[in-house]
Amino acid sequence: DPPAAERWGRCLRRIMRPDDANIAGNVHGGTVLKMIEEAGAIISTRHCNSGPGEPCVAALARVERTDFLSPMCIGEVANVSAEITYTSKHSVEVQVNVMSENILTGAKKVTNKATLWYVPLSLENVNKVVEVPPIQYVRKEQEDEGRKRYEEQKLDRLETKQRNGDVIIPVINPEPHTVGYSQSSLIHLVGPSDCTLLGFVHGGVTMKLMDEVAGIVAARHCKTNIVTASVDAINFHEKIKKGSVITISGRMTFTSNKSMEIEVFVDADPFVDEPQERYRAVSAFFTYVSLSKEGKPLPVPQLLTETEDEKRRFEEGKGRYLQTKAKRQAQMQQAARH
Amino acid sequence: DPPAAERWGRCLRRIMRPDDANIAGNVHGGTVLKMIEEAGAIISTRHCNSGPGEPCVAALARVERTDFLSPMCIGEVANVSAEITYTSKHSVEVQVNVMSENILTGAKKVTNKATLWYVPLSLENVNKVVEVPPIQYVRKEQEDEGRKRYEEQKLDRLETKQRNGDVIIPVINPEPHTVGYSQSSLIHLVGPSDCTLLGFVHGGVTMKLMDEVAGIVAARHCKTNIVTASVDAINFHEKIKKGSVITISGRMTFTSNKSMEIEVFVDADPFVDEPQERYRAVSAFFTYVSLSKEGKPLPVPQLLTETEDEKRRFEEGKGRYLQTKAKRQAQMQQAARH
Amino acid sequence: DPPAAERWGRCLRRIMRPDDANIAGNVHGGTVLKMIEEAGAIISTRHCNSGPGEPCVAALARVERTDFLSPMCIGEVANVSAEITYTSKHSVEVQVNVMSENILTGAKKVTNKATLWYVPLSLENVNKVVEVPPIQYVRKEQEDEGRKRYEEQKLDRLETKQRNGDVIIPVINPEPHTVGYSQSSLIHLVGPSDCTLLGFVHGGVTMKLMDEVAGIVAARHCKTNIVTASVDAINFHEKIKKGSVITISGRMTFTSNKSMEIEVFVDADPFVDEPQERYRAVSAFFTYVSLSKEGKPLPVPQLLTETEDEKRRFEEGKGRYLQTKAKRQAQMQQAARH
Repeated sequence: DPPAAERWGRCLRRIMRPDDANIAGNVHGGTVLKMIEEAGAIISTRHCNSGPGEPCVAALARVERTDFLSPMCIGEVANVSAEITYTSKHSVEVQVNVMSENILTGAKKVTNKATLWYVPLSLENVNKVVEVPPIQYVRKEQEDEGRKRYEEQKLDRLETKQRNGDVIIPVINPEPHTVGYSQSSLIHLVGPSDCTLLGFVHGGVTMKLMDEVAGIVAARHCKTNIVTASVDAINFHEKIKKGSVITISGRMTFTSNKSMEIEVFVDADPFVDEPQERYRAVSAFFTYVSLSKEGKPLPVPQLLTETEDEKRRFEEGKGRYLQTKAKRQAQMQQAARH
Repeated sequence: DPPAAERWGRCLRRIMRPDDANIAGNVHGGTVLKMIEEAGAIISTRHCNSGPGEPCVAALARVERTDFLSPMCIGEVANVSAEITYTSKHSVEVQVNVMSENILTGAKKVTNKATLWYVPLSLENVNKVVEVPPIQYVRKEQEDEGRKRYEEQKLDRLETKQRNGDVIIPVINPEPHTVGYSQSSLIHLVGPSDCTLLGFVHGGVTMKLMDEVAGIVAARHCKTNIVTASVDAINFHEKIKKGSVITISGRMTFTSNKSMEIEVFVDADPFVDEPQERYRAVSAFFTYVSLSKEGKPLPVPQLLTETEDEKRRFEEGKGRYLQTKAKRQAQMQQAARH
Repeated sequence: DPPAAERWGRCLRRIMRPDDANIAGNVHGGTVLKMIEEAGAIISTRHCNSGPGEPCVAALARVERTDFLSPMCIGEVANVSAEITYTSKHSVEVQVNVMSENILTGAKKVTNKATLWYVPLSLENVNKVVEVPPIQYVRKEQEDEGRKRYEEQKLDRLETKQRNGDVIIPVINPEPHTVGYSQSSLIHLVGPSDCTLLGFVHGGVTMKLMDEVAGIVAARHCKTNIVTASVDAINFHEKIKKGSVITISGRMTFTSNKSMEIEVFVDADPFVDEPQERYRAVSAFFTYVSLSKEGKPLPVPQLLTETEDEKRRFEEGKGRYLQTKAKRQAQMQQAARH
């Protein structure tokens, strides 16, 4: 068991401010994702530098699918704790838990459980991945389970790389509830506070911007108070350098009765002082729900698909939706059985 | 004459941080515009509440054309001072000066002189414009000159209202140096810190975002270090409410040998809880120059115009460019004569 | 001993970013003070709501003198832990420790130890101070020592209330190294994210602005890289409401061979919707040192005093300086003896 000081080392905590939330007072999913990633970056960078190897900074490679279990509000305290759960030769798996705490009533609620994968990059040569010091497992099965998760995510990362060619085509005078009507994009100039010591954008900063675009797409579609319900696995294929301009674009792909799926792309333009072309750095699916004033999920207007591609993406979204639903029901049955 | 303590009361001062500047270390024009507007809002709100009338908040109605006389850098202190120079029955003219100070060498440079017009809105009924307490003029001519400026800006505000229907049409696969190649847009969800006590966006926040888009258009066009050289008069026709989504779009309209003119539009979507349609809130022209590492202006690639509209806008931009150049030469000759 | 979950409850952690630091890379004292106050506000608000009384928010009443023991740098992680060390009927004493951690080398250094006093204000009636649930002391002496500290600070708070009438008078064309040459002021419009749930400015936000002004005064005087060395006890006599404009003014009062003492005043203008006059909300003394590139303290130019008041304040500053020096030597001798 690690000493108390070590356990301490795993936590990050902050009061939620008006700027962290929407006008209904719900903290943005992106704010939470940014805190999660900062906690993960601290613990994995610290671990990767604990061995005899060269100085390095842990860079986010992947976030597993995560659900937003309950909303957080302005004035509550976010408690973020992180733990290293697996190490391969060149990567670190971190489990991050987020709890909201109402310091007036003392009420605490788990709001997120996330799994992140980091890769340590040499401080002197950013293209070099350094070796990760192994962790000690209490039980042998922990290592085996970790290795299984490692292999699974490695496979998944390869697959998503294929999808990367897709772009969002602008539409003139779109009808309400069509894909073109709500699709949105924003550009952001990468500043110094967005970056790690290596001069590349923090994964958490990227996720916060992605959630901002997804939220605007969702709000444009249903014109009500919306909140992030979940984020599918996100792979960070390409680093984004300080001074780049990034374009974050989102379009709705699928609606169920009470949820909306939004696909988000991040493209980077390293335009100053570099010959490199624009490239796709990240892509992901966000799921949003619409909430009534009492915090109950509302029905959402159905997405009107027009082109063949839109219909195909709707079916793919439906597939992901049904798969998630089935998985959740299986988990609940399993939990009920025990 | 106001007491010394009052004169002091008018200044706003802040050290320029990395996030205020581009990667070459030059402070963004938008950062400066935001500070100018904050200083103007404070002094005019204070003045409008100094009489016996009802409580009110001064809202920005217009900023006169302003030049960026010399660049400011990270680590320097920006000194922003404001003075009320004219009051009509329902509006206040504020003169704001910005000086950069290198606190290590003591060197000070004037970087901006701006003139802003504010209108006081009732705190209880935001649609009611309250009366402005009159200021005392030292000399009778000051009042007459002020009245003349007041009439001129009133006329100009009416004129720009006409231009507002124009939109930016997206282009697929544009060629470098065409209008479609560099045009850019960003969306922003209006948060609490963007707003005044009345719940409407600070004019300075809007200008900062406009400058951000204009800067990205300029950088995409010439792919070098670029800085804001001047901003044409900006009229704030419509208020933007907290919780709105604003879309800020920019396109290049004209290039001279060493400058680029970019037109920027701000459209607001008050989509949650309101039936109102998207509307054009603000539009303006920004002029940018490209700088070498030594801070000298570089030649810029000429803008390739393709459509009739683009050619017309290029000619209009040329007209504005030549007019400004003529005015400046006249001022310099006049200054030389005295 | 509290359970592990409780120990967790005391910590706040964040990576230091470029905007947290000056151009030499040293984290601003004000950034540290703001984190200290946030940690203190969380733990004391939580404690004050743990009893059967009405919901309340802890407001900062006082910070004891605190030294900045070693500088923190960009990229390091700040670890802030807080513990309640005494409770009176209506106030809470919190001890906050700050440790900087270089996550690459693993090096940890204590950078601050601060003591803060909070008073719980009713959420429904901000003018009502609610009762504090008592804490359990392990040893009887802890309670007695706490009561002694409580009485001492109460006395000190009464005394500083007298000093409040003083104002800073501007000087035209001051000579270098005079008081008038370096004195500075800045204004800030209080926004929503600056405030607690009660709608009053966080004490930490005020301290951060005070340190910013003090830093500008110090840099103007000695024109080198300067860092906060210590802050004298600060009393928060008056709350500052959202929407107020605050003026923060600083002037140098004393220089020793290698340190500068700066007095800072905070005045609030609740100008909209309130009949209240401008009032003095806070005042404090900051001590700065000038650092060479190697981080060694440099000699500072001596302050030139001109008026009777300046000479008197210089002597008073000298008194504080000698007193602090004597206290520190006594502590070191005591430590050496053990």
